[in-house]
Amino acid sequence: MKIAVLGTGMVGESIATKLAALGHEVCMGARSATNEKAADWVARQPKGASQGTFAEAARHAEIVFICTRGDVTLDALNLAGRDNLAGKVLVDIANPLDFSKGMPPTLFVSNDDSLGERIQRAFPDAQVVKTLNIVNADVMVNPGQVSGELSMFLCGNVAEAKAKIRQLLESFGWKDVLDLGDISAARGMESVLPIWLRLWQALGTASFGFKVVR
Amino acid sequence: MKIAVLGTGMVGESIATKLAALGHEVCMGARSATNEKAADWVARQPKGASQGTFAEAARHAEIVFICTRGDVTLDALNLAGRDNLAGKVLVDIANPLDFSKGMPPTLFVSNDDSLGERIQRAFPDAQVVKTLNIVNADVMVNPGQVSGELSMFLCGNVAEAKAKIRQLLESFGWKDVLDLGDISAARGMESVLPIWLRLWQALGTASFGFKVVR
Repeated sequence: MKIAVLGTGMVGESIATKLAALGHEVCMGARSATNEKAADWVARQPKGASQGTFAEAARHAEIVFICTRGDVTLDALNLAGRDNLAGKVLVDIANPLDFSKGMPPTLFVSNDDSLGERIQRAFPDAQVVKTLNIVNADVMVNPGQVSGELSMFLCGNVAEAKAKIRQLLESFGWKDVLDLGDISAARGMESVLPIWLRLWQALGTASFGFKVVR
Repeated sequence: MKIAVLGTGMVGESIATKLAALGHEVCMGARSATNEKAADWVARQPKGASQGTFAEAARHAEIVFICTRGDVTLDALNLAGRDNLAGKVLVDIANPLDFSKGMPPTLFVSNDDSLGERIQRAFPDAQVVKTLNIVNADVMVNPGQVSGELSMFLCGNVAEAKAKIRQLLESFGWKDVLDLGDISAARGMESVLPIWLRLWQALGTASFGFKVVR
């Protein structure tokens, strides 16, 4: 599939690399069409990988992964352009982290709203699916690295969009994918961050995740 | 041990019944010394179980379990009395749920503060340990009911107090008990509720919990 990955940080690189390795045609989007990190990434990929502006990446994609920091997600999507996102599956894997008050970060939206819902409201013609935000970038694309099976959550308003992303998640190695319903479940998914951060501190590693045992 | 269980609801009854079955001397505390639910509970218990006001229950206890609804926790503790709580281990298993805006509930404190911290600030001479709030009342006292091992979190400012509660948790059947540090980790532990509520909805059962797979 043609997939845009918006963002050139650790998360963007992990997701883009995995998707390219799985044979997808990946375009890494950035503010600038000549972003150096994106160019470095393209140079290390198989044929079919490319780079562009947020708008160029989104325009040609069927699925758009948002891999920017949470506080610039809406900016990046505005640059990508409403028309380029209409009808597309928009995969939100960001967290609304606020680092302005020091560590550990707090959430700049929580409890009765979420970043996932804000994105869906700002781009009503896009099909937002929230997933993957509850683990670190390495675990996202290689859930088998820990010592047991992990669960992954996803939510969104459009069943077809969720079915497509479920398939992608399964191709990443996720086996226990739980559909939590409409996009308002993003509140719950983003509220995992405060406990993730304390566990990261307590365990001394980011290589962990959650299994819902029932 | 002499243990007070403040609260006569589902959580109080589960905890009190388990502690009594394990041979502890349990006093169930309520607003009234003659609370009917507490009297019913006492009648069904082995010798050594008793009931009393919040203050009477706390006065004679070494460990005090707070099993009231989150929004009345501080009220109940004020009735229990500062002097009766000083130097005691105060086990906070409540969640700061706000049902006033309908279902699902939101949290009345979150993100940059927590109920656990509020309790510790209000009763600085007590040794607050937060735990068990991330599962339902049945799973709290019988974690073996699900199909695999679960993790439990605890946090608090006093190492000795946490060691005592860890032992109690182990006697309940919890094997993977993770110490998340000081009482500010209650923010993370209470932020599990929004995702717990969505999972409860999606799975159609409250008989589940989380394993931290690493």
